[in-house]
Amino acid sequence: MRMYDIIKKKRDGGELSKEEIAFFIRGVTDGSIPDYQIAALLMAIYYRGMNVRETCDLTYAVRDSGERLDFSAVKGIRADKHSTGGVGDKTSLVVAPIVASLGVKVAKMSGRGLGHTGGTVDKLEAITGFRTTLSEEEFLAQVNETGLAIVGQSKEFAPADKKLYALRDVTATVDSMPLIASSIMGKKLAADDNVIVLDVKTGSGSFMKSAERSRELARLMVDIGKRAGKKMVALITNMDIPLGYAIGNSLEVAEAVETLRGRGPADLTEVCLALASRMLSLSGKGSAEECRLLAERAISDGSALEKLKQCVRAQGGDVSLIEDPSAFPKAKCSRTVLCPADGYIQRVDTEAYGVSSLLLGAGRNTAEDGIDYSAGILLRKKTGDAVKEGEPLAVLYAADETLFRAAEEKLLSATVIGREKPEKAPLIYGAVE
Amino acid sequence: MRMYDIIKKKRDGGELSKEEIAFFIRGVTDGSIPDYQIAALLMAIYYRGMNVRETCDLTYAVRDSGERLDFSAVKGIRADKHSTGGVGDKTSLVVAPIVASLGVKVAKMSGRGLGHTGGTVDKLEAITGFRTTLSEEEFLAQVNETGLAIVGQSKEFAPADKKLYALRDVTATVDSMPLIASSIMGKKLAADDNVIVLDVKTGSGSFMKSAERSRELARLMVDIGKRAGKKMVALITNMDIPLGYAIGNSLEVAEAVETLRGRGPADLTEVCLALASRMLSLSGKGSAEECRLLAERAISDGSALEKLKQCVRAQGGDVSLIEDPSAFPKAKCSRTVLCPADGYIQRVDTEAYGVSSLLLGAGRNTAEDGIDYSAGILLRKKTGDAVKEGEPLAVLYAADETLFRAAEEKLLSATVIGREKPEKAPLIYGAVE
Repeated sequence: MRMYDIIKKKRDGGELSKEEIAFFIRGVTDGSIPDYQIAALLMAIYYRGMNVRETCDLTYAVRDSGERLDFSAVKGIRADKHSTGGVGDKTSLVVAPIVASLGVKVAKMSGRGLGHTGGTVDKLEAITGFRTTLSEEEFLAQVNETGLAIVGQSKEFAPADKKLYALRDVTATVDSMPLIASSIMGKKLAADDNVIVLDVKTGSGSFMKSAERSRELARLMVDIGKRAGKKMVALITNMDIPLGYAIGNSLEVAEAVETLRGRGPADLTEVCLALASRMLSLSGKGSAEECRLLAERAISDGSALEKLKQCVRAQGGDVSLIEDPSAFPKAKCSRTVLCPADGYIQRVDTEAYGVSSLLLGAGRNTAEDGIDYSAGILLRKKTGDAVKEGEPLAVLYAADETLFRAAEEKLLSATVIGREKPEKAPLIYGAVE
Repeated sequence: MRMYDIIKKKRDGGELSKEEIAFFIRGVTDGSIPDYQIAALLMAIYYRGMNVRETCDLTYAVRDSGERLDFSAVKGIRADKHSTGGVGDKTSLVVAPIVASLGVKVAKMSGRGLGHTGGTVDKLEAITGFRTTLSEEEFLAQVNETGLAIVGQSKEFAPADKKLYALRDVTATVDSMPLIASSIMGKKLAADDNVIVLDVKTGSGSFMKSAERSRELARLMVDIGKRAGKKMVALITNMDIPLGYAIGNSLEVAEAVETLRGRGPADLTEVCLALASRMLSLSGKGSAEECRLLAERAISDGSALEKLKQCVRAQGGDVSLIEDPSAFPKAKCSRTVLCPADGYIQRVDTEAYGVSSLLLGAGRNTAEDGIDYSAGILLRKKTGDAVKEGEPLAVLYAADETLFRAAEEKLLSATVIGREKPEKAPLIYGAVE
């Protein structure tokens, strides 16, 4: 088999066989296929696409390109959720404890934030002492004992994806449905959960700007998971507005804790309950309605919050921060951003809000950058809210006054105020089963 | 400027600016753009194409990527022809002496053969002692004194093309009109002739299989040359049949000499006269008709043959081989291939004929392979000829009997014999001016 022939076949719109895809991913992983041939094939896939069968084979080859954890020692159903990434998206910190508190195992391997989107691992590391790197034995033991463990992805996980993503990133081939789906699902399937609920974000803060494209991606990923024997559902959720009011690591942990106390923002609470009840239902805990009630009760009776505390304790984190989030270290400086006009917030560029938080020190531009856990934004007004000129729009937090100017400009230019009250967009566009 | 943005622009069908193309070719030449980004852009160009303006800018950037000869010391008009490559194509050996004998300078820098096509430099090296590497001073002096010099291309010539071609060759992006045109014309323009006549081959022995594609390529190359201030014409010529009867280096030199003696095959003679009269006419030697007569006379009065002898002598070659081509060293072994049936030769796969000659040792598979100058094929029958079973179809020449079997099989399977006399295809499909 020759890589040249594989490129040529796809270039001309042909369907790659399972063997050809396996040959490709093997060569990517062991370095035997040069980068320029990988890049040429990625661009051909960008133009010609892949059918579901090809995309599945690509996904499974990526999944199998590295080590996989052996979960045979873990008892019971393992469920997970995966978000395609958004701004202010702290749902994992709420959903995972709810589900685990109801007896479904959550063995979560999460990513770090990059660019305008945050990552669960960064948020957890805002909790003093929290260890996101556990040995395989520690991880599995904690899942068995506590029902919940959240760690960072280890390096050996789906290495072909790491290589492919790095090349896509510099060759303008990121935005390809089969490549996106196989990248997300290749890593996700490597974790080998029984149940996977996808949160496919759509809108200005996500990388899928239209609901149709998001639905298409959701359909593809659900099919890939089902063919691999997983119980799958995807929700398409709104990322034209940041989720909740907090953007930034310790700010988001505090908001997640409030939500587990039943005092969280309505939008965040609703998305978390929807995701949690789907995970519970697919895990055999009852009908959608029954599981919704279970999830609501896990919040109201405090058992979900208690589960988060157990997890934090088990991973060495300071539980007092969960008991009293106001004890999180405060940013040295803060600045209130004022509304520039009367009217209603018509729409915001959510990605720009994420970038504003990044500029304050809450995120990283490159994988090597450090993070200021206390930096970020607390929104006071969101899309659809009535505002008056001079009223607070948001409060910015940073370690240094000099960071405010660019962040404030970014935030203000991303906020459109007008006279009419805008129509309310759905929070959840639908489910793909 | 970032290569990423250039890839993305072309990926989305945008038109690259002159500056972007210059940035790209500079990065290819100095190695600052990694191969994977070059490969991604090549594939995007494969799909999206380039308009004439972009293709011109690409061509001129390729032309300017390396050293160029300073022809200011050469007196008079310099004209050249360039063939896109065929089987049995020895026209340069006939055309260049005709044109030079009529007072137009021919400073020819030719290539070597690769795969099924031969190269003028290889053919000349079949002449004992012929030096295809001259210093710049020697080359220019000989052009001034003799009016004709033929050398191999030096390494520093249009190095960006060398790099690009090597990548196209392994990423399935060779077959792209703007990339083909800019590669051919980038090198050709670097030689800085005043007049360029292109011989764009079409059919089974060329890399352009259809006359329409050949015409399209011819149009593009003529436009590129004209915009660079050159006098240009392209002829579209038939490569569904090998040109002449000889395939292989010394066999082809002998056939070229016969043609300069006025005893060459009709098809070869006709193509050579057409090319030569175009070169002469564009060089100001008169109308097309007048130049045709001049070219015919240069053959009939022996002045063209005399010019070839002067050139061979000046470059150290054994002139006695031109005076008596039967003195060329003979191949150790020969085998006559017999016609397998009665009828007419309907059509042949000319590329396969070239490969058959390659299998006999007359060509090279990779740039490093050696060549057997006496190996090759003398055809006895060509497309349209009546044949009888058992009659000689061709004679094969090689250094070793064991080479015959594969070459004979290749030749026979590439020859289609049928009952009806096939329609005669045109030898020259037309001209693009």
